[in-house]
Amino acid sequence: MTKVLNSAEQFSDQAVDGLVSVYSRYLEKTYGGVISTRQTRPGKVAVVIGGGSGHYPAFAGWVGPGLADGAVVGNIFASPSTQQIYAVAKAAEDGAGVLFSYGNYAGDVLNFSLAEEQLREEGIAARSLPVTDDVSSASLADRTKRRGVAGDLVVFKIAGAAAESGLDLDGVSAVAERANAATFSFGVAFAGCTLPGADAPLFTVPEGQMGVGLGVHGEPGVDEVPLEPAADLARRLVDRLLQERPGGSSGRVAALLNGLGGTKYEELFVLWNDVRQLLAAAGLEVVQPEVGELITSLDMAGVSLTLTWLDDELAEFWAAAADTPAFRRGPGMEAKQVHRSMSEAEQQEVAEASDTSQALAAQLVDCLSDVASLLHDKERELGDLDAIAGDGDHGRGMTKGCDAALAAARSVVDAGAGLSSTLAAAGNAWSDKAGGTSGALWGNGLRQAATALADHSRPTAQQGLAAVQAGLELVSTFGKATRGDKTLLDALIPFTESLEESLNSGESWASAWSSA
Amino acid sequence: MTKVLNSAEQFSDQAVDGLVSVYSRYLEKTYGGVISTRQTRPGKVAVVIGGGSGHYPAFAGWVGPGLADGAVVGNIFASPSTQQIYAVAKAAEDGAGVLFSYGNYAGDVLNFSLAEEQLREEGIAARSLPVTDDVSSASLADRTKRRGVAGDLVVFKIAGAAAESGLDLDGVSAVAERANAATFSFGVAFAGCTLPGADAPLFTVPEGQMGVGLGVHGEPGVDEVPLEPAADLARRLVDRLLQERPGGSSGRVAALLNGLGGTKYEELFVLWNDVRQLLAAAGLEVVQPEVGELITSLDMAGVSLTLTWLDDELAEFWAAAADTPAFRRGPGMEAKQVHRSMSEAEQQEVAEASDTSQALAAQLVDCLSDVASLLHDKERELGDLDAIAGDGDHGRGMTKGCDAALAAARSVVDAGAGLSSTLAAAGNAWSDKAGGTSGALWGNGLRQAATALADHSRPTAQQGLAAVQAGLELVSTFGKATRGDKTLLDALIPFTESLEESLNSGESWASAWSSA
Repeated sequence: MTKVLNSAEQFSDQAVDGLVSVYSRYLEKTYGGVISTRQTRPGKVAVVIGGGSGHYPAFAGWVGPGLADGAVVGNIFASPSTQQIYAVAKAAEDGAGVLFSYGNYAGDVLNFSLAEEQLREEGIAARSLPVTDDVSSASLADRTKRRGVAGDLVVFKIAGAAAESGLDLDGVSAVAERANAATFSFGVAFAGCTLPGADAPLFTVPEGQMGVGLGVHGEPGVDEVPLEPAADLARRLVDRLLQERPGGSSGRVAALLNGLGGTKYEELFVLWNDVRQLLAAAGLEVVQPEVGELITSLDMAGVSLTLTWLDDELAEFWAAAADTPAFRRGPGMEAKQVHRSMSEAEQQEVAEASDTSQALAAQLVDCLSDVASLLHDKERELGDLDAIAGDGDHGRGMTKGCDAALAAARSVVDAGAGLSSTLAAAGNAWSDKAGGTSGALWGNGLRQAATALADHSRPTAQQGLAAVQAGLELVSTFGKATRGDKTLLDALIPFTESLEESLNSGESWASAWSSA
Repeated sequence: MTKVLNSAEQFSDQAVDGLVSVYSRYLEKTYGGVISTRQTRPGKVAVVIGGGSGHYPAFAGWVGPGLADGAVVGNIFASPSTQQIYAVAKAAEDGAGVLFSYGNYAGDVLNFSLAEEQLREEGIAARSLPVTDDVSSASLADRTKRRGVAGDLVVFKIAGAAAESGLDLDGVSAVAERANAATFSFGVAFAGCTLPGADAPLFTVPEGQMGVGLGVHGEPGVDEVPLEPAADLARRLVDRLLQERPGGSSGRVAALLNGLGGTKYEELFVLWNDVRQLLAAAGLEVVQPEVGELITSLDMAGVSLTLTWLDDELAEFWAAAADTPAFRRGPGMEAKQVHRSMSEAEQQEVAEASDTSQALAAQLVDCLSDVASLLHDKERELGDLDAIAGDGDHGRGMTKGCDAALAAARSVVDAGAGLSSTLAAAGNAWSDKAGGTSGALWGNGLRQAATALADHSRPTAQQGLAAVQAGLELVSTFGKATRGDKTLLDALIPFTESLEESLNSGESWASAWSSA
């Protein structure tokens, strides 16, 4: 039960402040998360990890030499926004590109992919590797649908060591992919966790039972069985993982026995004592096991076992030195301190713009203001609609996103921004503050539309159309939906088509827009 | 709730096995606990810590260069036996003496003091420092009655650094005493912990409340108040500790914010973020804060804040390098591996003995066998008596102790031991296996009696009397009771006096013994 907090809204942010103040020799806060304060070798690929918070030491506890260069910190159990991810990557990246790695959850995949896209548009090489180690969440044939759980750590650690060793982005990506393909986790849950500010657990496990394969955020498991002695539990975990032993694997494995937060150290050591004997009996050599609280879910009770089947190169990277607040291997790795953090304001430098474009930007603010008023009027209605199929927060998310977009647009217009920059700022703010999939899609759609416009000229009708189409393209690509799926595309696609048709038939922008 | 175990009896032992197998580069198991595998500087004072288990990383997680040379591991929340403590010290000690340090609880004080005594009898210099940091458990005037809680870590760390720096036993003891005098902790509890094998918590805190100053094993606190925001809790903790700021203290403090097991990292970081601001506002400079799970109580929810008021020397020792499984500071401290562990059997080498003494030893075995039968017959009766004033386990403890003494005596007699060695072995086994205060007193009383006897001659009547008196002396000194306190002394003292009187008046040993 989460008992220590000031408010649920400030929880993640205040936790980062506390963390950074304790580990200031390793970490500094940057807009969106934390980055390493240690100077890295010039030309080193940046490894940026992240996800929701509530999983400490994942992810911010693993920033430092030999592991990650930065960690993006979302709210409790929620993906960070595209803007947060982009911002941490920009602060951490040093000319050799960025490898993003994170657990395979829909929100994280969406936002990390969008941030990757945004970096590429700026000419920064970026790759993404979602970790897919949880054997309970999909069959081996459906490997890409598996969730990422404690295996995150092995993949991140190996990627971090590969980057430290001097491999380029292609090389680091390839090693990380091989590590992920070789990593398998299986776990059980004894009790759910309580979110900050909530007074009941997020999910429960019946008394005397355990949830086999239950996800760390309460995602469905594969079975519910009575509690059993540690030796039987050890056999259950080991047997399941040995089922997926890859053909041709060497007998060497990395092993993690992870406690989810409410299962304590002595219990983990008792279980490990049985696990290690079973692994030895199976003829396996364990390289540098880790037993402890590695990826927690607040105070959830449960354990998971992770095995990574090592080849020589993976074994070398797994055993290599690392020096972070919560994971250390080998001697301490001292390095010069550097400061690369950026505030939210520094992220939003305003480009020069022509008077015409500034005037159009001011009109955009008025337009956003109208939309915001409309959304406030309709907030309850949207929420009620969402409650039928979702969690009822769609109205709130849309309103928060639009309010943030309006505020950001006003702020950059006051600083002299043109149309493209203002639309980009509005989009960034929308995706950053709205939360959820629709927030990420709306905000990034607006930001993408901005790329078809300029800060120095009045856009032609065709440029306007290109902007709308660019936004639509992004929403449909990353939303993975098409017309008829009852998403916002059902409105946007006909709108865009009508706009295109009218413009092509010679109508003016204003007339084409209103008839569409 | 403790869910992962094979059996409550084996829990602590299996946890140590698991721990040692994960951290074999730091630790090896020895009879009674764990010791460091790193070679130490010749002439270094050994620092041996310990207590009950269930508090990981306390105590076995803190063994390594710069901290402790060994940790004694008792059962869950129970003092280790005198024999365990003695055995770990013997394995860890390297010619320059031993400093014992541990939390100030009656059972630990008794057993560590008895082990200290036993080492001294062998000519090994030994000192004890019980840590007394918990401000809730007694007033400052009654400082020696305060419990030891998370402040243990600061005192152990400073003592370990002092030993590493080359100070002799007097010097290390003096530094550790100064560290303890400067250390103050204050905590709150949100929920109790569940012992392995139990199906309900050891203690509970009412819903929506917190126990202020509640002990980590459920010992009474000072107040019960409603839950409050982190900022208010931070103020409560800081204000209480500042009340005891020593006169003339510098503005530098070591600070620990400890989670008891069920209060998670992000919560601790949120709280630290408030605590650090209050400490700064009070003009204090925090030297190397530690925020995390340092001394847990299984899955108990709660936090404590510890401040140690540092002078230059304490600050230097607090900041010095250390390299252990769960506490690391500065660069890794590599050192040659050595093996000094001893099995239970190696602890019991049998000295040569005369035929006469061997025959007497065999009679002692018969006598112990009679006592064991009697105790088995009376086990329930003793338990019922104890249930009136205690926890009803006295009958069980006495029976276990006597059975263990009988088995140990038989084993050494089979190996040719004489009377003194057999009595010592019986006493050691009794105190090791009986548990509780009476077990420690009976067992150590027998061991002490053995010192007045020999393995090569039939004892004179006066030697027999000296043996009985030596045992009595030990029991009364460490039991801190006198005649009339309704303890076993009420029977032993008149018995001894009568024995002495009869012998002095010329009676034979047999006649004096039976009339007594």
